[in-house]
Amino acid sequence: MVKKSSDMKSTVREKMRGGDGQTVMKAMLDDGEYNGRARLFSTITLEPGSSIGEHVHENEEEIFYVIEGSAVYNDNGTDVIMNKGDCCICLGGQKHSLANRGNETLTVVAVILTY
Amino acid sequence: MVKKSSDMKSTVREKMRGGDGQTVMKAMLDDGEYNGRARLFSTITLEPGSSIGEHVHENEEEIFYVIEGSAVYNDNGTDVIMNKGDCCICLGGQKHSLANRGNETLTVVAVILTY
Repeated sequence: MVKKSSDMKSTVREKMRGGDGQTVMKAMLDDGEYNGRARLFSTITLEPGSSIGEHVHENEEEIFYVIEGSAVYNDNGTDVIMNKGDCCICLGGQKHSLANRGNETLTVVAVILTY
Repeated sequence: MVKKSSDMKSTVREKMRGGDGQTVMKAMLDDGEYNGRARLFSTITLEPGSSIGEHVHENEEEIFYVIEGSAVYNDNGTDVIMNKGDCCICLGGQKHSLANRGNETLTVVAVILTY
């Protein structure tokens, strides 16, 4: 099955998980389009000044892969700069946050695997 | 855990699965860096003229998300053009192939979920 970008649904979340501004999530695949143990295949876009606040992933793990811009990623308590082509994983029980403190749009591919 | 692009390992496969030219796979995450039911988190790059031949995925499913260039994707027997921002999934038991017949580099994010 091929899903064209124009057929993907976008969702806008305000101050997601206590962060700032807007988080735009564009679902690459929706529930029912895959069978594996996952619950999210999406791009996440943050304009400059926007962020997703710190939160814990329990019984699941989330991967971000930066395809545009740069991020300040808080990796279980430590700020790390992520640029295009960098990847991170928040394992079950760990916490993270994601912020765009630069001047360009930040977009990551996000995948959540459930256990 | 953050993995910088410069720390990711690249592998070059010649005529992958009976295709043409070279397939460059750059592992976003390696085995042991995630715990979910998956076996691949990688970018796949095909220069113009290169391709991955048709193959079946048994007991697993593969997702491609185009981040650069365009592809001729054979979706279980049917050719479909994929452009930047498009996504596809090859479910367990289905077959697919991926070719770069354009003039620009093609790069996709590839994830394989195991059942």
